[in-house]
Amino acid sequence: MTLVGASCPLCQTSGGLLVVRTERFRVVRVLDAQFPAYYRLIWNEHVNEWTDLMPLHRGECMHAVAAIETMLRSELQPTKVNLAAFGNVVPHLHWHVLARFDWDTHFPEPYWGQVQRAADEAKLLDLRDRMPEVDAALASAI
Amino acid sequence: MTLVGASCPLCQTSGGLLVVRTERFRVVRVLDAQFPAYYRLIWNEHVNEWTDLMPLHRGECMHAVAAIETMLRSELQPTKVNLAAFGNVVPHLHWHVLARFDWDTHFPEPYWGQVQRAADEAKLLDLRDRMPEVDAALASAI
Repeated sequence: MTLVGASCPLCQTSGGLLVVRTERFRVVRVLDAQFPAYYRLIWNEHVNEWTDLMPLHRGECMHAVAAIETMLRSELQPTKVNLAAFGNVVPHLHWHVLARFDWDTHFPEPYWGQVQRAADEAKLLDLRDRMPEVDAALASAI
Repeated sequence: MTLVGASCPLCQTSGGLLVVRTERFRVVRVLDAQFPAYYRLIWNEHVNEWTDLMPLHRGECMHAVAAIETMLRSELQPTKVNLAAFGNVVPHLHWHVLARFDWDTHFPEPYWGQVQRAADEAKLLDLRDRMPEVDAALASAI
């Protein structure tokens, strides 16, 4: 599968709520009602695989992924942080960085796995309310 | 959830077919009949999150993940490589590194997602047969 430029959604749009953009990548928050604390780091240039990046840029990419994970941990004290780079559907390098909670609909299954329980709307509402300040903290950390 | 030492399976066992072990981590091949080209990098010390590692070790970890990805790409020309660090079930740092093929049972869903098609036994057999030489190449690359 090759999707570049006009046919690649991550070449055409930010890919989520833009939190911060650098010369090489941007960080967006994914607007998922069940997973409010879900960011993606999207490489600006269209590359398919993480190892398509030269080692310097690969390091820069992971430094930013670490900054997102660190911010999620310090701001939200999640049960776990989940990291993933798949790109099977949209093969334009992006890293998923999600804070997971033992009360979320899928825990301990991955986001991509089976639902385990009903949504806890009170906890979700509280988490959604906190995300703009996490965005702001993240924007100044990157 | 806290699983350390006696109660953590990744403190108690290699966690798969041992391919290579260094002072800080090991690489194992996961013996999954549907996904023969599936490795895990497991940190030897019990740490929960990737950012629990000091930056030097975090870099060392990702350098090895990159080496696995590079070897999978050069040896097997997969459709995509998938990388993930979840640890929701076993919170002992490990990275999943899988070669994905457009004919595999789940593509383009993640390994953790829904089955998309029946297994292609002929292709799986061929892939399984090739894995010992990928293991050997990987052991000398790390």
